[in-house]
Amino acid sequence: MNHRLRTVSLCIALLVALLGARPVLAADPLASWNDGAAKKSITNFVAAATHTGGPGFIAPAERIAVFDNDGTLWAEQPIYFQLAFAFDRIRALALQNPRWKTTEPYASILASDIKTALAGGEKAIAEIVMATHAGMTTDEFAKIVADWLATAKHPRFDRPYTELVYQPMLELLAYLRANGFKTYLVSGGGIEFMRVFSEKVYGIPPEQVIGSTIETKFEVRDGKPVILREPAIDFIDDKAGKPVAINKFIGRRPVFAFGNSDGDQQMLEWTAAGSGARFMGLVHHTDAEREWAYDHPSAVGQLDTALALATAKGWTILDIKKDWKRVFPFEN
Amino acid sequence: MNHRLRTVSLCIALLVALLGARPVLAADPLASWNDGAAKKSITNFVAAATHTGGPGFIAPAERIAVFDNDGTLWAEQPIYFQLAFAFDRIRALALQNPRWKTTEPYASILASDIKTALAGGEKAIAEIVMATHAGMTTDEFAKIVADWLATAKHPRFDRPYTELVYQPMLELLAYLRANGFKTYLVSGGGIEFMRVFSEKVYGIPPEQVIGSTIETKFEVRDGKPVILREPAIDFIDDKAGKPVAINKFIGRRPVFAFGNSDGDQQMLEWTAAGSGARFMGLVHHTDAEREWAYDHPSAVGQLDTALALATAKGWTILDIKKDWKRVFPFEN
Repeated sequence: MNHRLRTVSLCIALLVALLGARPVLAADPLASWNDGAAKKSITNFVAAATHTGGPGFIAPAERIAVFDNDGTLWAEQPIYFQLAFAFDRIRALALQNPRWKTTEPYASILASDIKTALAGGEKAIAEIVMATHAGMTTDEFAKIVADWLATAKHPRFDRPYTELVYQPMLELLAYLRANGFKTYLVSGGGIEFMRVFSEKVYGIPPEQVIGSTIETKFEVRDGKPVILREPAIDFIDDKAGKPVAINKFIGRRPVFAFGNSDGDQQMLEWTAAGSGARFMGLVHHTDAEREWAYDHPSAVGQLDTALALATAKGWTILDIKKDWKRVFPFEN
Repeated sequence: MNHRLRTVSLCIALLVALLGARPVLAADPLASWNDGAAKKSITNFVAAATHTGGPGFIAPAERIAVFDNDGTLWAEQPIYFQLAFAFDRIRALALQNPRWKTTEPYASILASDIKTALAGGEKAIAEIVMATHAGMTTDEFAKIVADWLATAKHPRFDRPYTELVYQPMLELLAYLRANGFKTYLVSGGGIEFMRVFSEKVYGIPPEQVIGSTIETKFEVRDGKPVILREPAIDFIDDKAGKPVAINKFIGRRPVFAFGNSDGDQQMLEWTAAGSGARFMGLVHHTDAEREWAYDHPSAVGQLDTALALATAKGWTILDIKKDWKRVFPFEN
């Protein structure tokens, strides 16, 4: 009874809001996108997906949209933001780890020589991740990330990292959700790192965040159950790992996928190979003035084979310089 | 515009339906539950969780409810249903595998001597799973499971296995969802096995199914991307694995958890250890006539330490004989 009354009130409120707010709702949901082929490919796809009985119709339960994060929803230069977090952690923990002064990759990080620090490749990165992302409970880790996000600033823009999200992509996420799509993050970034800000920044709840994971362990500590983050890689959610993780976490094939690098290629291929209407998109970083211009070769977010494939297949290639009126929310 | 109009129409239709349908909506959503402590503990919890401003209020986004499957939502006797599937697969594949006639555990399965077949313990079970659940694409596996579910019959009730679901639990799932809870399966069963029927049978979509997994691999085969099921265990979603998987897949701590065996104990402990209102429940199988009566010792769904813990903590212990008017949907 109580529940019904609440639904009725909600409906009345909604009717009032909808009928009284024509101009606002009639506004372009993708206002930061220039009119052009990229924008049109999105709005055409969504219009068809929601047109019951039409050839491009997609049942609401199947409206799964997946987005890469680094370079697709927020920036990834000059280094992946999570790596900046790791470096800051190493600086913060240096006093407790005196041997880091003379051991690589720590010594180079402490000397701000990032190039040398990363010269050790994947092994060096794994070591950095283990030293900074493991050895605490999940709650403790979330607190460390939240504190960092609240205080750290991006070196070029001197703003919190969470302000370096792409305004047009925020609009796209909201537009898809308003049309019944469930939006997911599918990123090489750490799942528990992203979950700290994904809901607030993207409107994507933790249960729709998929990422790389380290091993975790349940333990009852002093009578209190905790989940501990262990120093061992569990899964890397990149390249061929992305469709594998999508299949494991979601269990449905997406109908919409957006990425920006060769690490997203298999996710796009997996999405494309389903039956019925689908959308595949790539962000091409072409704007050195407002953001960055890079594709290949690039140490960060290399885009080479996926760009060739997208071109051959006629997937949407979004050109930041041409297609976006505004890149970051803080621009005027 | 089109979208607004549709929302308006929907709202009007909803108002008409709600205002015109008092008697139906006033019916007991838990009609198959006898009035008693178990039912009351559920309705009290849900009433408080949805009472804005009250001490037991839970924000909608936090209303995560997790359910074990075997023995909690459907029966698990005389053997776990997925094991019955595996045995049927071994029979179906025996002609192609002539050496199985003389090799354990296959020989005993083919001779219908399940006790000897399972005498090899976990190693035997792993072998059976690998032989029957791997070596095909995910799409092929889903088809095999669907075909089996459509034809196999439970030995005691002579009905499809998916009819051996508990009517009161179907009502509970629907009741929770009507009150804004997101319902999840968290089972030791195979994630891709359960996803074949979870949406149709429980109203739980694939992306809310968590279970045990085997390794999978993305591959482009003859130009077509597929995901292959590999003969290696990835993760066992049981005991301490359950809170680990909940944390990995959902990233939020549940506020409501229901299980029936010691394999659910850590999931219940993890749920209980959060702050604010929470509900922990155990199904106690006490009705040999309508279902089965067992707790410990038991080869299937052993309930021993979790029962002691639930008693000590005052969690809800549901007694099938006392608390359920009806067990299966097919009963009159």
